Amino acid sequence: MSTPIVRSVAELRTRVAAWHKAGERVGLIPTMGALHEGHQELIRAAGRACARKVVTIFVNPRQFGPNEDFARYPRQEEADQIRAHDAGADLIFAPTVGEMYPDGYATSISVSGVSDGLCGAHRPGHFDGVATVVAKLLIQAGADEAFFGEKDYQQLQVVRRLVRDLDIPVRITGVPTVREADGLALSSRNVYLSAGQRALAPLLARTLNEMASRIAGGAPIAATLADGLAGLRGAGFDEVEYLEARDVVSLVPIETLSAPGRLLVAAKLGKTRLIDNVPVLPKAAP
Amino acid sequence: MSTPIVRSVAELRTRVAAWHKAGERVGLIPTMGALHEGHQELIRAAGRACARKVVTIFVNPRQFGPNEDFARYPRQEEADQIRAHDAGADLIFAPTVGEMYPDGYATSISVSGVSDGLCGAHRPGHFDGVATVVAKLLIQAGADEAFFGEKDYQQLQVVRRLVRDLDIPVRITGVPTVREADGLALSSRNVYLSAGQRALAPLLARTLNEMASRIAGGAPIAATLADGLAGLRGAGFDEVEYLEARDVVSLVPIETLSAPGRLLVAAKLGKTRLIDNVPVLPKAAP
Repeated sequence: MSTPIVRSVAELRTRVAAWHKAGERVGLIPTMGALHEGHQELIRAAGRACARKVVTIFVNPRQFGPNEDFARYPRQEEADQIRAHDAGADLIFAPTVGEMYPDGYATSISVSGVSDGLCGAHRPGHFDGVATVVAKLLIQAGADEAFFGEKDYQQLQVVRRLVRDLDIPVRITGVPTVREADGLALSSRNVYLSAGQRALAPLLARTLNEMASRIAGGAPIAATLADGLAGLRGAGFDEVEYLEARDVVSLVPIETLSAPGRLLVAAKLGKTRLIDNVPVLPKAAP
Repeated sequence: MSTPIVRSVAELRTRVAAWHKAGERVGLIPTMGALHEGHQELIRAAGRACARKVVTIFVNPRQFGPNEDFARYPRQEEADQIRAHDAGADLIFAPTVGEMYPDGYATSISVSGVSDGLCGAHRPGHFDGVATVVAKLLIQAGADEAFFGEKDYQQLQVVRRLVRDLDIPVRITGVPTVREADGLALSSRNVYLSAGQRALAPLLARTLNEMASRIAGGAPIAATLADGLAGLRGAGFDEVEYLEARDVVSLVPIETLSAPGRLLVAAKLGKTRLIDNVPVLPKAAP
């Protein structure tokens, strides 16, 4: 069994309008396809809040840089239809690039602040591309709630800010990262890893978790970050783009843990860029 | 009699939702207040297409440059309520700056192409401010149709492009410019003019109309623009920012009249900046 696909905004709206007319709450799960257990968890989370679940599949050219992996990003629509169905999705919206960006297309959305630094510093224009396509998908679908993985934590904060700022009438829900048994965060890009790289990759999550424990236990943030960075480099990561502690909402860098924080990392194994993040919470007062 | 005002997005949405539930089509007329006969014509145009008419009044700080007239822009809410009522408006949405741009606000929308040149060249950031606030107002209100004056012709094209690009589900309707008996386009900024300036101001429209006749009759565009420019300068306009012939939709400069064009002008009398535009159509084949 597989979930049906529509390709046009008009068909998408017709379906959503019928569900709304029947009084059904509609959840949206924006993806770039190559669905894995992490996406399926998003669909199941949507199912706990919404009668109807729409998965969007669109490999958005505007959020890839010129030297990034747009062309080779995994595309596997039939497998996606089966995975979407198994997780309970009612509909897939998989538009063409021409449906999303017709001739003469000229509009771009920027979210300052939360887009700066972290992935924003290493992928120029990436979050403009994300903000623009997410705004379009939310406006196209008119869903009641949309679900995003915490694995792309900065993206989640950009989307939250965007939706609040433009008053898009949708609730944004973040869903915790799904991990392999050894801790590696699920990602469509994990298929790029060689066996040796795959063996090394879980060190990202392990490092973040150890750092979170130390910082929560009172260790200074700057020294802990330096140790974590040295550990990743020493173990063989080819490039650590960033390893930082940030405020959970504003994503402003933090030097002491006075409010809930987030540790975030981006590092490369060969050409494959992996990201991950974990919460770090101040100890409750005794 | 005067039209009631709401200040919050939530109240606006409650009103529009009730009308939609009753099956009534809702028209939106975005303005910066200081309503005049031109705005009233927009409201009447909305009334011919929509059962309900919502006027928005918001002097948007983000579309004014640092040396422009944001602080002294005319504000006259009670008079606006009466004029809105007389033209048939059902509701005014007049949010505070804090309601539109709350603490932490960080999102901006840009429309390239149609925003370049003309007013875009002389008012840096102006059309980003326009695109952002219009997108917000359209998303906030959820109206079926929105009405904009052709007097701000470049703005109208920016809004059309924005709405198409972001798939905002609203129809955009342009309404012809309303003029004084002597041809001067109505504008909230006309109140800034001294008696002498006011006497000179109608030359803008007269010049545009004469140019349109000459070009439609076969005169070369470049020479006609040069003559028009010389005429305005010679008559005493303090600065002619631009006087151009453009394609009606893309706003690309045109050198010959092979498709419908538009002649557009911006010129200053003292500190007061006036804009105007007229259509120029190729002669039908004999």
